[in-house]
Amino acid sequence: MFRQMTAGFALVLGLSVHAQDLLQYVDPMIGTARMGHTYPGATAPFGMVQLSPDTDTIPYAVDGKYTGDVYKYCAGYQYEDKTIVGFSHTHFSGTGHSDLGDFLIMPTTGTLQLNPGTADHPENGYRSIFSHENEMAEAGYYKVKLDDHGVIAELTATTRVGVHQYTFPEVAEAHIILDMMYGIYNYDEKTTWAFIRMENDTLITGYKSTNGWARTRTEYFAMAFSKPVKSYGFKSYEKHPYRGFWGRFDQEMNFPEAANEKIRAHFDFDVAAGEKIQVKLALSPVSTAGALRNLQTEVPGWDFEEVKRQTQASWNHELGKVTADLGNDDDLTSFYTAMYHAFLGPTVYMDVDGQYKGLDQNVYLADAYTNYTSFSLWDTYRALHPLFNILQPTRNQDMIRSMMAHYDQSVHHMLPIWSHYANENWCMIGYHSVSVIADAVIKGNADFDVEHALKACVQTANTRYFDGIGEYIDRGFVPEDKSRASVSKTLEYAYDDWCIAQMAKKLGKKDLYQEFIRRSESYQNVFDEKAGFMRPKLASGEWVEKFDPLDTHWQGFIEGNSWNYSLYVPHDPKAMIEMMGGKARFTTHLDSLFSMELPDRYFEHTEDISRDGIIGNYVHGNEPSHHVAYLYNWTDEPWKTQDKIRMILKAMYQPAANGLGGNDDFGQMSAWYLFSSMGFYPVAPGSDQYMLGSPAVHSATIHLENGRDFFIEAKHQSDRNVFVKKVELNGKPLGVQYITHEQMMEGGKLTFYMTSKPNQ
Amino acid sequence: MFRQMTAGFALVLGLSVHAQDLLQYVDPMIGTARMGHTYPGATAPFGMVQLSPDTDTIPYAVDGKYTGDVYKYCAGYQYEDKTIVGFSHTHFSGTGHSDLGDFLIMPTTGTLQLNPGTADHPENGYRSIFSHENEMAEAGYYKVKLDDHGVIAELTATTRVGVHQYTFPEVAEAHIILDMMYGIYNYDEKTTWAFIRMENDTLITGYKSTNGWARTRTEYFAMAFSKPVKSYGFKSYEKHPYRGFWGRFDQEMNFPEAANEKIRAHFDFDVAAGEKIQVKLALSPVSTAGALRNLQTEVPGWDFEEVKRQTQASWNHELGKVTADLGNDDDLTSFYTAMYHAFLGPTVYMDVDGQYKGLDQNVYLADAYTNYTSFSLWDTYRALHPLFNILQPTRNQDMIRSMMAHYDQSVHHMLPIWSHYANENWCMIGYHSVSVIADAVIKGNADFDVEHALKACVQTANTRYFDGIGEYIDRGFVPEDKSRASVSKTLEYAYDDWCIAQMAKKLGKKDLYQEFIRRSESYQNVFDEKAGFMRPKLASGEWVEKFDPLDTHWQGFIEGNSWNYSLYVPHDPKAMIEMMGGKARFTTHLDSLFSMELPDRYFEHTEDISRDGIIGNYVHGNEPSHHVAYLYNWTDEPWKTQDKIRMILKAMYQPAANGLGGNDDFGQMSAWYLFSSMGFYPVAPGSDQYMLGSPAVHSATIHLENGRDFFIEAKHQSDRNVFVKKVELNGKPLGVQYITHEQMMEGGKLTFYMTSKPNQ
Repeated sequence: MFRQMTAGFALVLGLSVHAQDLLQYVDPMIGTARMGHTYPGATAPFGMVQLSPDTDTIPYAVDGKYTGDVYKYCAGYQYEDKTIVGFSHTHFSGTGHSDLGDFLIMPTTGTLQLNPGTADHPENGYRSIFSHENEMAEAGYYKVKLDDHGVIAELTATTRVGVHQYTFPEVAEAHIILDMMYGIYNYDEKTTWAFIRMENDTLITGYKSTNGWARTRTEYFAMAFSKPVKSYGFKSYEKHPYRGFWGRFDQEMNFPEAANEKIRAHFDFDVAAGEKIQVKLALSPVSTAGALRNLQTEVPGWDFEEVKRQTQASWNHELGKVTADLGNDDDLTSFYTAMYHAFLGPTVYMDVDGQYKGLDQNVYLADAYTNYTSFSLWDTYRALHPLFNILQPTRNQDMIRSMMAHYDQSVHHMLPIWSHYANENWCMIGYHSVSVIADAVIKGNADFDVEHALKACVQTANTRYFDGIGEYIDRGFVPEDKSRASVSKTLEYAYDDWCIAQMAKKLGKKDLYQEFIRRSESYQNVFDEKAGFMRPKLASGEWVEKFDPLDTHWQGFIEGNSWNYSLYVPHDPKAMIEMMGGKARFTTHLDSLFSMELPDRYFEHTEDISRDGIIGNYVHGNEPSHHVAYLYNWTDEPWKTQDKIRMILKAMYQPAANGLGGNDDFGQMSAWYLFSSMGFYPVAPGSDQYMLGSPAVHSATIHLENGRDFFIEAKHQSDRNVFVKKVELNGKPLGVQYITHEQMMEGGKLTFYMTSKPNQ
Repeated sequence: MFRQMTAGFALVLGLSVHAQDLLQYVDPMIGTARMGHTYPGATAPFGMVQLSPDTDTIPYAVDGKYTGDVYKYCAGYQYEDKTIVGFSHTHFSGTGHSDLGDFLIMPTTGTLQLNPGTADHPENGYRSIFSHENEMAEAGYYKVKLDDHGVIAELTATTRVGVHQYTFPEVAEAHIILDMMYGIYNYDEKTTWAFIRMENDTLITGYKSTNGWARTRTEYFAMAFSKPVKSYGFKSYEKHPYRGFWGRFDQEMNFPEAANEKIRAHFDFDVAAGEKIQVKLALSPVSTAGALRNLQTEVPGWDFEEVKRQTQASWNHELGKVTADLGNDDDLTSFYTAMYHAFLGPTVYMDVDGQYKGLDQNVYLADAYTNYTSFSLWDTYRALHPLFNILQPTRNQDMIRSMMAHYDQSVHHMLPIWSHYANENWCMIGYHSVSVIADAVIKGNADFDVEHALKACVQTANTRYFDGIGEYIDRGFVPEDKSRASVSKTLEYAYDDWCIAQMAKKLGKKDLYQEFIRRSESYQNVFDEKAGFMRPKLASGEWVEKFDPLDTHWQGFIEGNSWNYSLYVPHDPKAMIEMMGGKARFTTHLDSLFSMELPDRYFEHTEDISRDGIIGNYVHGNEPSHHVAYLYNWTDEPWKTQDKIRMILKAMYQPAANGLGGNDDFGQMSAWYLFSSMGFYPVAPGSDQYMLGSPAVHSATIHLENGRDFFIEAKHQSDRNVFVKKVELNGKPLGVQYITHEQMMEGGKLTFYMTSKPNQ
């Protein structure tokens, strides 16, 4: 108790200085151009509300046909765009697929326009032209001038409440529009129902249900204005065969409720020149009553600046978990923005009173933990959750509790694959929840029911009807003619099974360990010795005939070709290297990955990456290669890991809107950056080892939640001195290529001695 | 406490005898033909589940156009039909408009057919031919043989659980179909979303949301089978532009979840000849978890007979509140079936743990009361709620608490008009909640917050934008050019205002009394002295020119013509009679109502009645005339009331499927029967007086909830002796044309001395 109070006290006292120190190194604009798929708006750490500008309304499908354009609007915002449609309250960060964009608000002036207009003709709708010169983004704060309306819009957010502050010019008519039809990855029938009520002249409540990536999602809100509404209207755009006795009312003007698939609302105000109107919008996964409670609890007053100050203080607290010296502001910006991006999700999914919606659409009370959602696990099991075991151990345990709740509520009796907002969306492959759980268990960050968790992992891994698992169990591989991307699946199942084996071993369950360690060797069954690559196999046992390891998009693989995926045996690189012909041959092989020159045609069908995300044939923009540069550690030339890591850090991460070489993937790309720039990386989560690379920091101190510090220093650090001469832990030679989680948790000092020459 | 225990003890001991006594006089088939709109299925008193056969699937609209045929399927069942589509779990009783029909279940044999088929070609779908010879309906129990499938279907229900028992023949394939697309007053887009989960091989949960008469209604269920399902399938009929990653599953066979607007499910079983499969389906207004809790609490086991026995025992308990002697079984059947129909609603709308959904779609906990829904108030304020103040005083108070909760949750700050399932449907006119509340307050059955209730009444009566109220307040009448059915509205507002005045007086609020007693005189403003009738007026103050008091459908009036509606001043018949030219002239006028012969054309546009519901121009099938026969009591010829009442009782109520002359209107028609056959009627609810008529009973004992008995006897009762010679209360001459509620509550004896001669 005393300890906590001290920490809290220090936090309060230290904030103003800290704020100056770290907020300046966060640039939410990084990744907002092209493939980064980050959003520039305001959010609290792991916040339920992500209040951010959306720059276009490209639908996912028109007349039932996929438009192909929507993909780049995963986060609602594209840096190149010239107009802002409005500010919606939910956004994924860096994902490769999307949903959300709930409750878009837009302040306008002049004649009321209820349609958004088009990017080419913003004057035909409520959207507005803007320019980056009049735009500012900070952690927890966003500001922009809306040129068409002369309105200055400022945004901030607490965990569950988005706060808008609009400064109006001198105008005859001022409106605030609430577009409940808007959505990211929208299409005509996506919103299945919406409901809105004018509770009084400053309070509005409502909800909408959507059928999208989340198949059955309902999000509730309560919205308050700082000034009474002069007039208002709820416009419904869908007519139903039966409209009942509501026809006796004029439901479009000053009528206090509406329900329809398609609703846009406007609220009209008299304003003086320079007058500010604030809007607070709270979300709830449970009810409008919950949203109202969230609103009243988190933002009871009308002090925009105070909300901003508190949220930015909490950002500083989170960012302050590592005190890093990188020698220059650009690299500090890359570092702390990476940390900012890493701390955007999974997001809180729970009202202030602990209520949340479960996978079965029932309301649950989170019992003494914080419930989270938006688990992009195929991405984040690799480095983000391992990072959390160091920097956010309490949150990571709560995330696992949330995953366990999902399991308990799942009619499939499965842990989440890719879940968001009380839905499983089944995106991507593997059952990587087990990696996240095993990593926490092995690292001793497991104050949850571990036996039940292991049972959940085993049950998940034995769901025969899911994605070829039955075939995998029976044959030791997924046959390509039974389930596409069969090699990717086989390899990832094998790794996940190794994770289960590690948990089983730790819990003393020998039979289970044997069963799953055997399954973890399944990668051998898809290795074609003749080709020297992993290769899709048919149920007959024959290899798929047509096979070019560079061009295998959806031919046995997903988000990676065979060349990259063939290196995916993170749990046993030693055996993999033997299988591939031994260290010498493997080293040459790996060298060619980074140096080969690939014709464009090989990239035509790849997903989620631009050419920026690729070095030779090494694809950093997609996740399956994230451990690859560290594989030199198992050869006789570990200095090549050091060289490559530094090269990738420079090439793939720039402090600019277009600075990310691929989707940030809810922080996985950023977590890779943070680990690698500190000099180590969790090649196989579920192991307690972090493989050493080459630190880019001059020094970094990790302030552990247990109160200890782990200090990393890189002596003689420079852009030329990328090679590691020797490594000491607490002043003694380390002797191995890794440090363990236990060593880190004890606190201490890890010293890299850097040099410009490979330590051959 | 001792009293309750004794009552409970008596109940248990007395039931078997009682059951024989009263259940035999309930025939749920009464009113199922033509216009009665009752349903024959199984329900507990005021039960949340009304499990009943539906005989057709006529949609409300096709391609957005009203079909015109749906009206007669208000209760799902029409006696003339030859096929049964299935058994759904929610039905209104006797209403003139509809909704519901949730979760239709149908047992079938042979090749699976998932569409319902048509009445002409039942063999093309899952529906089945049936005949009334193989059909049996009792209170709380229904049985039918489904000829196409050879299945005997039996139904019973507790308050929240429907229990089915299907006896199968020897067949190769047995199926139980759950059609989540089915609904009463259905149309293509009515179901906005449905969700279903196979929790395990005997338990299914789910919900569906509809947009119909209830604009935003979601109903949840949990369903259990007595035998594990062999195989199952959820078929979805709507394709969405974005179907996500669910495509990796075969979602139609043995896949445990589905979500779509349109879902039909089938569950397949191996059965032996004569094997019974039971199905229990619990409803919840709140969640599938709530439904499951209801299921486990109310019907934990698999004893169909025991559930039936308990529900029929509770029916006997309710029916036993009056012990009546009517001299013959037919009249006893009319009497107890009327009581059965009177006790079908409003229905419980609350889980066993007290949770229910409020008008704002939030979940509330009913604090120490039972929450009810389905308030057909334009009908039921007249006699049903007054009947409840005698026979169901505790329930009536809870109904008022439910109406107050509605008010507290209403964004209009209005009491219910016609509300069901957490929705206001705005059907019909007036604000008759105030009558129900005033009647309870005046009669001292008001253990609720009376001050708050009065405030709710006043606020409701002052909602200016509702149905001409603003004009009514300003001008003293509703102008026809501002709001249709203006005379009906003016007259009913005036009566309701009188009710508010009575409450205000009782609570000592003189100003409020004055304000509303003044408003209650507004009926005078629509009386055209020259025409001698109530007549629609324009905002200009001019009478509407075209005016035939017999043919005024929607020309100033609703569900009644001017001839009938001109008699609607229930709160001051004396003044009305003066206004209409005095007693003598009024008597002649009233005589002509019953004796005139009207050409058919006058009935072409009337609603909710058949010619059976009409005597001359007296329309008993619609409610506005329900007090009319009692108006002779204010003339010098009260014996004409006695004569007319007995004539109406005979003419309008027959113990046959086609025995009701109009919609039973959720028990209002039945309540009229019960009051009138016992010899008195509440002409003006909100007064404590019951006007005397002519009892049809030989005797009747009302067993009051306060433990006392009120005994009514009609000496020399016969079909010829319809006139009352004298009336004694507790052996003393009564001296007035009414008894008071207080007199009744004291217990005692009311003796009518009957004769064949009018007591002129």
